[in-house]
Amino acid sequence: MALIVQKFGGTSVGTVERIEQVAEKIKKFREGGDDIVVVVSAMSGETNRLIDLAKQIGDQPVPRELDVLVSTGEQVTIALLAMALMKRNVPAVSYTGNQVRILTDSAHNKARILQIDDHKLRTDLKAGRVVVVAGFQGVDENGNITTLGRGGSDTTGVALAAALKADECQIYTDVDGVYTTDPRVVPQAQRLEKITFEEMLEMASLGSKVLQIRSVEFAGKYNVPLRVLHSFKEGPGTLITIDEEESMEQPIISGIAFNRDEAKLTIRGVPDIPGVAFKILGPISSANVEVDMIVQNVAHDNTTDFTFTVHRNDYQNALQVLENTARELGAREVSGDTKIAKVSIVGVGMRSHAGVASQMFEALAKENINIQMISTSEIKVSVVIEEKYLELAVRALHTAFELDAPATKSE
Amino acid sequence: MALIVQKFGGTSVGTVERIEQVAEKIKKFREGGDDIVVVVSAMSGETNRLIDLAKQIGDQPVPRELDVLVSTGEQVTIALLAMALMKRNVPAVSYTGNQVRILTDSAHNKARILQIDDHKLRTDLKAGRVVVVAGFQGVDENGNITTLGRGGSDTTGVALAAALKADECQIYTDVDGVYTTDPRVVPQAQRLEKITFEEMLEMASLGSKVLQIRSVEFAGKYNVPLRVLHSFKEGPGTLITIDEEESMEQPIISGIAFNRDEAKLTIRGVPDIPGVAFKILGPISSANVEVDMIVQNVAHDNTTDFTFTVHRNDYQNALQVLENTARELGAREVSGDTKIAKVSIVGVGMRSHAGVASQMFEALAKENINIQMISTSEIKVSVVIEEKYLELAVRALHTAFELDAPATKSE
Repeated sequence: MALIVQKFGGTSVGTVERIEQVAEKIKKFREGGDDIVVVVSAMSGETNRLIDLAKQIGDQPVPRELDVLVSTGEQVTIALLAMALMKRNVPAVSYTGNQVRILTDSAHNKARILQIDDHKLRTDLKAGRVVVVAGFQGVDENGNITTLGRGGSDTTGVALAAALKADECQIYTDVDGVYTTDPRVVPQAQRLEKITFEEMLEMASLGSKVLQIRSVEFAGKYNVPLRVLHSFKEGPGTLITIDEEESMEQPIISGIAFNRDEAKLTIRGVPDIPGVAFKILGPISSANVEVDMIVQNVAHDNTTDFTFTVHRNDYQNALQVLENTARELGAREVSGDTKIAKVSIVGVGMRSHAGVASQMFEALAKENINIQMISTSEIKVSVVIEEKYLELAVRALHTAFELDAPATKSE
Repeated sequence: MALIVQKFGGTSVGTVERIEQVAEKIKKFREGGDDIVVVVSAMSGETNRLIDLAKQIGDQPVPRELDVLVSTGEQVTIALLAMALMKRNVPAVSYTGNQVRILTDSAHNKARILQIDDHKLRTDLKAGRVVVVAGFQGVDENGNITTLGRGGSDTTGVALAAALKADECQIYTDVDGVYTTDPRVVPQAQRLEKITFEEMLEMASLGSKVLQIRSVEFAGKYNVPLRVLHSFKEGPGTLITIDEEESMEQPIISGIAFNRDEAKLTIRGVPDIPGVAFKILGPISSANVEVDMIVQNVAHDNTTDFTFTVHRNDYQNALQVLENTARELGAREVSGDTKIAKVSIVGVGMRSHAGVASQMFEALAKENINIQMISTSEIKVSVVIEEKYLELAVRALHTAFELDAPATKSE
């Protein structure tokens, strides 16, 4: 008999009919003998409806009151799900964040969980009840209602699993697992049985939106096995867990991630003196623009070239700042390009395998794809290429690293 | 500087625009120097929307979970009103029933308030904040969310006023006060400056829907001065307070109440033996039908006639039960009539004035209105008449007891 925390997002509980389907699913788990704690989000659309009400009053809603307002969204769902369970003769009880007591700091709208009182939950589980907990919300030490910010329900699930030392935290979504890459780009993409927390973090930060980064970090920190599953389809999903060294047959690369959200900026002919990087990036950061990849070429004639990427939404802003900087530094030229894409190979296996990066470059070269920038981490190699080659690059890498599903399988 | 508890119902906070109007109103009170605690209901329509969601799952929603669900309605309103106040630079803070701590018993959906912790509220008032409290809800000693049942927001207002020893509890509604009778029937009806708790209770129980009976009882018990006012029109409203003996000019009759919701049943030729009343009304009560007026005529030939009224919705049911009883008792005949109306004169003044009832009967006789049943209490005389004479009877009584507004006044 296992203790499982299950999290269902807004789409999975978007209508009463779907809530009934979720109740049906939980009933089957209970019949299998597992203890279940369920974390739910607000019904899809509800949080936006509430925020719209607040926005009608003012553009900058008072953060404390916004939390009082939006936390009602999950409260509605927990009540309805508990009703749907009891209708099926599954004993159940609902709790708000305050009732559990999910203690957070007082940072309204983006609070962090400090502590979870597991007393009530354990009593209910012992009595055979399914416990239905409102995600995304908590209470500070003064009894003020707080919310964890958008997507915080995943974090609630993981935090509850950690507090209860649950055997698994299952995140139900609208995909049936984590894939080697986006199946819309590569039809041969395969669902991964397993992926490590680190790999998942890299995939998430690269634009794979299956899980909230924060919840993966949290799960990794407390070593809570996470599983991504489809809400309404059967299947084992993908288990996200620690790196098990004994797994000999681990693939070198777990997946190919990519995004088209970035733009590239280059400043050429900058004096190659200490502190020049800060002189270039300081003003960018002061303008609240986040920088992703940074490349500085070796100096040549006492000047150097400097390239970095930012989110496309920040491109115009960053370009203006950079042009000012160029004038001040007496740089030769500033240029930019929004038609780029970033492609990354991710895998803990590359730690112990030399030559993974060059294998990647070789695969791209074979397709005549020019690499504009390169950056590497311990478990990831990212390149920036021209946007129009993105799909071609992803497919070539997917094949080169032997991630394609066997033709006989019809997954 | 007074401490005022103000309660705004669902219609008064039915849209964001109206919530802003309420905020504007409260701001003016604050500028006048009063300390304000505001109690609000759910935005009109919201409670029904939530109940509909629950009904989609099952006809008999689990009471505990129904309270978790519907209590979100007021929680939305308190947040929005607090935001609207702060937008106007009026410091404000919102509290749910649980946050205040409004302790109730555990009778979900119809809980009773046991105790109110006034600690937080006093601290906030001292700091110059308007406190916005969710009506209709509380929490039991185990931390379960409870609701007081429909209309319970009035009760929350009165209970808070009692706990805080407020100078006045103001109930804002869609009428500008309590009238001598329904102005739709008698255009000369006048707004009462004052009415006693007892009179208000009689008026309410007779169908005048201005206030919830329970909140009036509560206000009377704790001697909280209640004032009924219009949410969006200026005016002093009607003060509901204790009977002040010194008021010499008190009118004998404060108002004329009436309702058309009842039906009359008669059983004739019943053996006049002890226990016969119970034999007749016992089965009616067992069928969950509530009986209002009861009249038994003096016996004659060892048999008696027995008449009572029930709600019209219960008429068919009651008639069937009564016919069975008639067979068992060997009664002569059973008859019924749904085309009746009840008219009552209400006033604490009649305690010290003889002949009020006969003055009433005289006024009706002058209009040739036949009286079918009579019942009296210390501050009320009620008669049952044929329904078609209702308006005529109310107007005649309104004039006879000198309640008509002077012709010069254009109220």
